[in-house]
Amino acid sequence: MAPTRSESAPEKLGIGMVGYAFMGAAHSQGWRTAGRVFPLPLRPVLAALCGRDAPAVRAAADRHGWAAAETDWRDLVARDDVQLVDVCTPGDSHAEIAIAALEAGKHVLCEKPLANTVAEAEAMVEAARKARERGQLAMVGFNYRRVPAVAHARRMIAQGRLGVLRHLRVTYLQDWLVDPEFPLTWRLQREHAGSGALGDLGAHIVDLAQYLAGEPLVGVSAFTETFVRERPLLAGVSGGLSGVRGAGRGPVTVDDAALFTGRLASGALASFEATRMASGRKNALRIELNGERGSLAFDLERLNELSFHDHTEPAASAGFRRILVTEPDHPYLEAWWPPGHALGYEHTFVHQARDLVAAIAAGTDPEPSFADGLQVQRVLAAVEESAAKNAVYTPVPAPSTTETPSDPEVP
Amino acid sequence: MAPTRSESAPEKLGIGMVGYAFMGAAHSQGWRTAGRVFPLPLRPVLAALCGRDAPAVRAAADRHGWAAAETDWRDLVARDDVQLVDVCTPGDSHAEIAIAALEAGKHVLCEKPLANTVAEAEAMVEAARKARERGQLAMVGFNYRRVPAVAHARRMIAQGRLGVLRHLRVTYLQDWLVDPEFPLTWRLQREHAGSGALGDLGAHIVDLAQYLAGEPLVGVSAFTETFVRERPLLAGVSGGLSGVRGAGRGPVTVDDAALFTGRLASGALASFEATRMASGRKNALRIELNGERGSLAFDLERLNELSFHDHTEPAASAGFRRILVTEPDHPYLEAWWPPGHALGYEHTFVHQARDLVAAIAAGTDPEPSFADGLQVQRVLAAVEESAAKNAVYTPVPAPSTTETPSDPEVP
Amino acid sequence: MAPTRSESAPEKLGIGMVGYAFMGAAHSQGWRTAGRVFPLPLRPVLAALCGRDAPAVRAAADRHGWAAAETDWRDLVARDDVQLVDVCTPGDSHAEIAIAALEAGKHVLCEKPLANTVAEAEAMVEAARKARERGQLAMVGFNYRRVPAVAHARRMIAQGRLGVLRHLRVTYLQDWLVDPEFPLTWRLQREHAGSGALGDLGAHIVDLAQYLAGEPLVGVSAFTETFVRERPLLAGVSGGLSGVRGAGRGPVTVDDAALFTGRLASGALASFEATRMASGRKNALRIELNGERGSLAFDLERLNELSFHDHTEPAASAGFRRILVTEPDHPYLEAWWPPGHALGYEHTFVHQARDLVAAIAAGTDPEPSFADGLQVQRVLAAVEESAAKNAVYTPVPAPSTTETPSDPEVP
Amino acid sequence: MAPTRSESAPEKLGIGMVGYAFMGAAHSQGWRTAGRVFPLPLRPVLAALCGRDAPAVRAAADRHGWAAAETDWRDLVARDDVQLVDVCTPGDSHAEIAIAALEAGKHVLCEKPLANTVAEAEAMVEAARKARERGQLAMVGFNYRRVPAVAHARRMIAQGRLGVLRHLRVTYLQDWLVDPEFPLTWRLQREHAGSGALGDLGAHIVDLAQYLAGEPLVGVSAFTETFVRERPLLAGVSGGLSGVRGAGRGPVTVDDAALFTGRLASGALASFEATRMASGRKNALRIELNGERGSLAFDLERLNELSFHDHTEPAASAGFRRILVTEPDHPYLEAWWPPGHALGYEHTFVHQARDLVAAIAAGTDPEPSFADGLQVQRVLAAVEESAAKNAVYTPVPAPSTTETPSDPEVP
Repeated sequence: MAPTRSESAPEKLGIGMVGYAFMGAAHSQGWRTAGRVFPLPLRPVLAALCGRDAPAVRAAADRHGWAAAETDWRDLVARDDVQLVDVCTPGDSHAEIAIAALEAGKHVLCEKPLANTVAEAEAMVEAARKARERGQLAMVGFNYRRVPAVAHARRMIAQGRLGVLRHLRVTYLQDWLVDPEFPLTWRLQREHAGSGALGDLGAHIVDLAQYLAGEPLVGVSAFTETFVRERPLLAGVSGGLSGVRGAGRGPVTVDDAALFTGRLASGALASFEATRMASGRKNALRIELNGERGSLAFDLERLNELSFHDHTEPAASAGFRRILVTEPDHPYLEAWWPPGHALGYEHTFVHQARDLVAAIAAGTDPEPSFADGLQVQRVLAAVEESAAKNAVYTPVPAPSTTETPSDPEVP
Repeated sequence: MAPTRSESAPEKLGIGMVGYAFMGAAHSQGWRTAGRVFPLPLRPVLAALCGRDAPAVRAAADRHGWAAAETDWRDLVARDDVQLVDVCTPGDSHAEIAIAALEAGKHVLCEKPLANTVAEAEAMVEAARKARERGQLAMVGFNYRRVPAVAHARRMIAQGRLGVLRHLRVTYLQDWLVDPEFPLTWRLQREHAGSGALGDLGAHIVDLAQYLAGEPLVGVSAFTETFVRERPLLAGVSGGLSGVRGAGRGPVTVDDAALFTGRLASGALASFEATRMASGRKNALRIELNGERGSLAFDLERLNELSFHDHTEPAASAGFRRILVTEPDHPYLEAWWPPGHALGYEHTFVHQARDLVAAIAAGTDPEPSFADGLQVQRVLAAVEESAAKNAVYTPVPAPSTTETPSDPEVP
Repeated sequence: MAPTRSESAPEKLGIGMVGYAFMGAAHSQGWRTAGRVFPLPLRPVLAALCGRDAPAVRAAADRHGWAAAETDWRDLVARDDVQLVDVCTPGDSHAEIAIAALEAGKHVLCEKPLANTVAEAEAMVEAARKARERGQLAMVGFNYRRVPAVAHARRMIAQGRLGVLRHLRVTYLQDWLVDPEFPLTWRLQREHAGSGALGDLGAHIVDLAQYLAGEPLVGVSAFTETFVRERPLLAGVSGGLSGVRGAGRGPVTVDDAALFTGRLASGALASFEATRMASGRKNALRIELNGERGSLAFDLERLNELSFHDHTEPAASAGFRRILVTEPDHPYLEAWWPPGHALGYEHTFVHQARDLVAAIAAGTDPEPSFADGLQVQRVLAAVEESAAKNAVYTPVPAPSTTETPSDPEVP
Repeated sequence: MAPTRSESAPEKLGIGMVGYAFMGAAHSQGWRTAGRVFPLPLRPVLAALCGRDAPAVRAAADRHGWAAAETDWRDLVARDDVQLVDVCTPGDSHAEIAIAALEAGKHVLCEKPLANTVAEAEAMVEAARKARERGQLAMVGFNYRRVPAVAHARRMIAQGRLGVLRHLRVTYLQDWLVDPEFPLTWRLQREHAGSGALGDLGAHIVDLAQYLAGEPLVGVSAFTETFVRERPLLAGVSGGLSGVRGAGRGPVTVDDAALFTGRLASGALASFEATRMASGRKNALRIELNGERGSLAFDLERLNELSFHDHTEPAASAGFRRILVTEPDHPYLEAWWPPGHALGYEHTFVHQARDLVAAIAAGTDPEPSFADGLQVQRVLAAVEESAAKNAVYTPVPAPSTTETPSDPEVP
């Protein structure tokens, strides 16, 4: 038989990606897989991968299936076969690359946190606003919204299953900095990472909390702490979490942990903890919401499960139930495996790719938007301000009239 | 055969108890049972029970096995057959009764929180100090220290199994106020209860956190909230959680929830949440401690279990283990059942009775002392002060030189 | 005030107990406590305790609160102040004592398994039948029916929440024989214990399975095994699980483990495993029932919880829920603590005492009856027969016409 | 820059796959992804996909990334660009296709169960033996061996962490047949599926039990049951679990459930349950092994976790620990994400592809072999024989001298 690609195959969408460490690998898996699992209106093509180290980026391109490799992101942004630029670099280059890509007429997907400062994030939102007028889309990569259990929780909350919210408690606990000999990678340097656990982990949980609650944080009270102030220097440039150790020690310039509390617009009380020093907790993003009619709880270490208590049931038969979020009518599950067959971490990137491609084809606004990313950035800034001022309650500025945070979509 | 009581039976210790609602029932079970399970140096005798309603207190005395009933606590305190006064009333009468009992030469066990104000607690500590010179003892009823799993956690921490502490997170979540029609009992009135979730639940978790960590909280940042501001009035006087509803509604004058963060003396970060509005959480006193060498977690809803992660193990075989705290060499377990046979809530009162009787016989200081109760009271006051001042960081005053909080004993 | 015992105090019910080891301690706690927690129509009085070793039984009587001590069970049975004989001895003396007590006009509570052989159990049932005509009652101590979560499960099943049953799987796993140096106590000797894990643990799970399902096992296929064939001899007589080691080793004459499968009357498939060799499992009595409309699961190591899946719910929100069986309308809970306050192992004996006292006062048949105990004995005999015959399917004989196993009562 | 594929790219390995339903999709994901994540010595190329329905297979090929489509498996087997044939059809065609592929000089991967009968499986083993002499490899797709937690369990057992085994208990519980209106798909017809839950689920757990224990089952006692004897007919041919309903009902000719017990070569007792009627259990493949030195437990519904109890620890600090099997030195994890980032179901197929490609490049025997698949088939046949003979103990025939089941490799 002849080759099988049929006449009606969808049009291509050329992807160019900057960065190829942890996030680069995860995004590659997303772009490669989305169209194999979901019927997509456009066919993502892994056009070109960009990184500064030519042999390394070439090897990464081969490994992950990218057709070409670039060493200057400006060249990537200029390529004709690239319609979407996916920014997977450390936070200090997000604004420059994303804005340039938008100005070059590309759609943009940018890793979280959106930027290292509120000012950068504001510029990005403005660039996205202008690009939107030209039909380009911009999305920030809060991938955990696309864990099926999280999306299903959002759906249940939108349906009113929790009623008026009273409490949120959210943690994101890891332990890779417990060892004082863990070296000083870019993630521990303010100039590259912007902040530490706060931007890396705290950004995720602030976004998730606001997404699930369907309302913003209006103010916070915060502590941050750097428990280990100096760490071994790395000899060379480091990608991802690892690196080669060099001589001597250098100062850690970001937080190891951030602990903050606050209020949502509705008056609900919320608590947040982001840390890399919680021994034995590997990826414990946990969220619990208590409302007048019910409660929901989620733990990223058991990401196929959602815990739900229906407070309207008779007390004698009520209790937190473990919903295995693998049923065909759970979000994203229609395309995967039969009930009970678990998904994993990287599926969130497949779902992110699916949703962004669908939005591009439909011309609708993808979610979370850059404005959503900016709002998270403002919360993080308020956290840092409060931590610097004896934990005093610090309001989170409201969006300006030209910014339009998404109405959280019901999946 | 003749009656069996042998010549060498231990001397009696006459107990007089004030209050016979929830705590009264639990303490009765403790006094009745301690000497049946543990070999005690003194034999507790349930001498007299006191309450204001004569027929009710007489019925309660019959039910719970008290030899006599009194309607005025002054009469109880004056009885010759009473050597120990057990104060189980609401917080507004703790100081008056406990101080009178100490001045009358009795040992005193006082329910938590020690008092409704710092000033009352200070007076109680002073009264206890003077009574101590006469050989009388005073103890505050933070019974959860005597859950075997908690005592075992204390032992492990004292042995250095966690190393330097980095994080504590503690919650005490209940849900009996979610229903806005739950009536206005004494626990919701400031003049009787002092505070709401803060004093009732928060006092427990502050004490537990400091007991387990082996160090005090030095400052806090806090929110408190009353979500339901008015509730149905009760027709009459109410004991415990229930009551008869009357006409109309009255104001709730205590907090429904308290959310606070802080630092321990060592610099560890701590978070606390006490609420009666967490749908589906019935008695979720949860504590987790993360240290450089390990972590421990406990949940009162599964009180026979302790979760432990040993961070010194190779990563490939490390993980949180569920220790079933029912082995003969776990605290208090030598006298109970074979491994795997669960204990329950009221066993903490049996253990409390055992330890207090043993201290009286030995003339040693029981723990937690009134000074420990005062220190908790100061934390609660700092929480209220911070909550009133925009959550600003509020130091907890250090003990005066005449107060001597216990060195937490290793069980 | 005068002593408080009021005129209308309930009549006494004198208890005489034989045996004072593990079960004796647990039953003592039950008899002492039942009337302090539940309003009882008769007042249990701990009249006399019996054991062969005079000083030991005297000390035990003092410890546990028995008024008198006896060294010959015939003397105990003959006492006028004893109306109920509670048999807590090893299985080889159950029949003799229980029958004598019934013939002496006493009510009888007999520990499980009812007897060491079917013939003994049949004689006991016949003695109970005759005694019943004289108004005396007989009950066998399958105390786990009185775990509130188990009783609540029975209630839900009786209400049809599971529909037609398809599967039962039941285990009772302990690990105290894993150590080959654990000594040869009476529980490891056929002449005293009748069988090993089968009679000790298997009897419990056979009774529970039939009680919950509301129907009998009709046949079984079985393996039994003694993994450690010789163990150190004990120097003297041993009570309970412990003892003093003597010289040399002797043969273990009972099973370490029994593994069997079978069918219920309705055709549901059932599997059972009883073992003392499951490392790390301390008291893992686990039962799961799957029906057309739902499933229930229980684990004695978490005895305040019941796990329930409602199969009639939409799949997207269905899942096993953890019911904390501590609500006031759960069985037995009306008299205990507020929601979320755990009960323990020995509460089952309090509940057993309550129910038996209530039955005596009302003249109704207590449950489980001796006929229920005989039926379990027949299952155990069928297990041993199948194990001896290459696991071939072995029917369980139906009750004779004079035996009347209880219709499981809905609690 | 020029295209990136470097000179030293590995040689291609052309894959031809038969079947494109559930297993086809999962295998496609495995073949597509393995080389993107792991450095492979050969590059798998998705050469051709085969199915009987031309438009459907063409669409599936497009979807899953296969270069060509075939409608006759004989044509697929004959293709020059195919070096490995992957058989994902129902069991009734495994033998014919696999033997033809081996005779045509191809490597073969065959889905489990290896065949529908022992005779077919024997013929396949013989064909594989001959092909091996020509350098071709054959592997059976027991993919669950390649869940990292399972492979890690195997490693721990091989290291002696459990000591002498005493007990295995294994279940594979699903619930998709609880609804009596679920239609009569091929999986419910003996002529296509060979058996029901037994071959589909039971084959997995028999293989896993023997793989983990490192020893075979030597005999079994069994029950099988078909609870729902008739089901709605499907109108047309059905792929996977779904289909279009037709008129009327037809007989279910396979088991809904199989319950069996047995002994391992070492004398350990084992129990197995495979069912599609366990309400609320979606994919509950659970295995627990108890040995003299420790225990391990695994649940496929939480596939990133392994539960381990170390019985050599002091009892006071021992307990089942939850190992999150996501560390870099866990099997297969060196190539995936940082600790705590979960893998999912389909990763097992990626690992299977990796291991098979590595074996082909190295010329070593892949595991599990066809002989391993035949041994499982013999266990299934013994189960059916025992079930037909009143559950009598039925030995599992030993391998003939020309069959060589794998020594389970330590991952």
